[in-house]
Amino acid sequence: TIFVVTPTYTRLTQRADITRFVNTIKHVEKMHWIVIEDSEHPTEAVRELMAESGIPGTQLYTKTPENSEKKDGMERFQYHRGVDQRNLALNKIAAMGDKNAIVYFADDDNTYSLEVFDEMRKTERVSVWPVAFVGGQKYERPIVVDGKVKKWHVSWHPERTYPTDMASFAFHSSLLHTGRVPQFSHEWRQGFLESGFLEQLLDSPEDLEPRGDNCTKILVWHTRTMDVNIKREAKLRAEPFIKV
Amino acid sequence: TIFVVTPTYTRLTQRADITRFVNTIKHVEKMHWIVIEDSEHPTEAVRELMAESGIPGTQLYTKTPENSEKKDGMERFQYHRGVDQRNLALNKIAAMGDKNAIVYFADDDNTYSLEVFDEMRKTERVSVWPVAFVGGQKYERPIVVDGKVKKWHVSWHPERTYPTDMASFAFHSSLLHTGRVPQFSHEWRQGFLESGFLEQLLDSPEDLEPRGDNCTKILVWHTRTMDVNIKREAKLRAEPFIKV
Ligand SMILES: O=c1ccn([C@@H]2O[C@H](COP(=O)(O)OP(=O)(O)O)[C@@H](O)[C@H]2O)c(=O)[nH]1
Ligand SMILES: O=c1ccn([C@@H]2O[C@H](COP(=O)(O)OP(=O)(O)O)[C@@H](O)[C@H]2O)c(=O)[nH]1
Ligand SMILES: [Mn+2]
Ligand SMILES: [Mn+2]
Repeated sequence: TIFVVTPTYTRLTQRADITRFVNTIKHVEKMHWIVIEDSEHPTEAVRELMAESGIPGTQLYTKTPENSEKKDGMERFQYHRGVDQRNLALNKIAAMGDKNAIVYFADDDNTYSLEVFDEMRKTERVSVWPVAFVGGQKYERPIVVDGKVKKWHVSWHPERTYPTDMASFAFHSSLLHTGRVPQFSHEWRQGFLESGFLEQLLDSPEDLEPRGDNCTKILVWHTRTMDVNIKREAKLRAEPFIKV
Repeated sequence: TIFVVTPTYTRLTQRADITRFVNTIKHVEKMHWIVIEDSEHPTEAVRELMAESGIPGTQLYTKTPENSEKKDGMERFQYHRGVDQRNLALNKIAAMGDKNAIVYFADDDNTYSLEVFDEMRKTERVSVWPVAFVGGQKYERPIVVDGKVKKWHVSWHPERTYPTDMASFAFHSSLLHTGRVPQFSHEWRQGFLESGFLEQLLDSPEDLEPRGDNCTKILVWHTRTMDVNIKREAKLRAEPFIKV
């Protein structure tokens, strides 16, 4: 089984983004979709999208606490996004007890080739591959020499132990059962979530298993959906019975 | 057969957009995908994406002529996009001679539910449904009374005969065989392409066949992919062998 872990939150493009995401993951066999809403209650919208998808899944929710915002030195973002949501999912997957599965963090707005799901099934401990459209670059990727990750094609904080995006790795569920369940922390610096998490799973980047022809193929794109202009919305009578 | 007509052009997010689009249309049975590049030559990138998709298709190309730009009164856009590309596809489909098919204009960056493809298969002449994220509104839609389109939930140029988006309709291929093949024109005003085209197919909006529970369900979203920040790209050595 692949556990696909998707944090999500209510916004105008949520239904569109999830519809498109579902059209991709519908092609993936033997998967379980864990969706965690950043909200105080589960929403009907997500319940419905999950049910209509036909994909076996679990709907969870946890609101990012207000007080875990504002740390020193943070700029554009006030708090890490998806931290509590992914932690909840990790605990849930650990509790489900499947020790022969793969876990992948897949945001609802990225673009995924179907091939990335085939590649991640090969994971023994932690697989890694390039991600496009991150870090101010066309792509970031591990550089592989003799089958091992030796360097990184990354310019933003390359001193991170694992300078790589959330969408760039998958790991074997057995790693959830070797002690404390690995977690993300609000205490970490912005942009250091992936590195902090992977430090709990591995001893060194050389333990990573490069996928996608030794990390030369782009299989995931960190796309973002443009904000929608609804400036003219007020000119017409609202029709709240239409679900967007 | 559904002929899905997709104009496209080379850009940084093209492969991502088409990958995601293919993941959606791969679910559609009995379709033929016509892709028309806005270029002087067919590209290897599109050839490869089409081949890998496994979807039966035809790769065409035609460059939007430079001199069909700048008409009086045009603002943000210098010329209609996709005019020559869609015209080429219409002529090609007419030449293929299938008189029992459906034709749908589907840009590569929109979001499509699978249900919209089921709905369009019911088309006798021209089907219509709502589209989200257009015209500065959450959605635009036809308003249906007693099974007929009587008005439009539209605020931008509502005086158009058919004030509706390219992604909001599909038509029966028999309409390509009743005389001159219907076409788009660079002479029309910006935003009037759909209306001008539909005027060639129908006598009045009441001839439209409303789909999606009388045009109350959003089945298509006019999403756009955010431009990618690659400001840091120059900081690292270029790796032209990596296909983004
Ligand atoms: O208030 C928020 C904003 C985002 N997210 C989730 O955190 C992840 C990253 O968010 P986003 O895609 O907006 O970030 P970006 O792509 O800009 O890094 C996504 O799975 C979101 O659904 C969240 O849980 N709460
Ligand atoms: O230079 C261009 C720009 C766009 N298009 C095509 O015209 C359609 C509309 O373009 P776009 O999606 O950029 O427009 P928007 O969504 O902003 O209306 C799409 O199918 C594009 O692939 C084109 O053929 N040449
Ligand atoms: Mn995102
Ligand atoms: Mn578009």
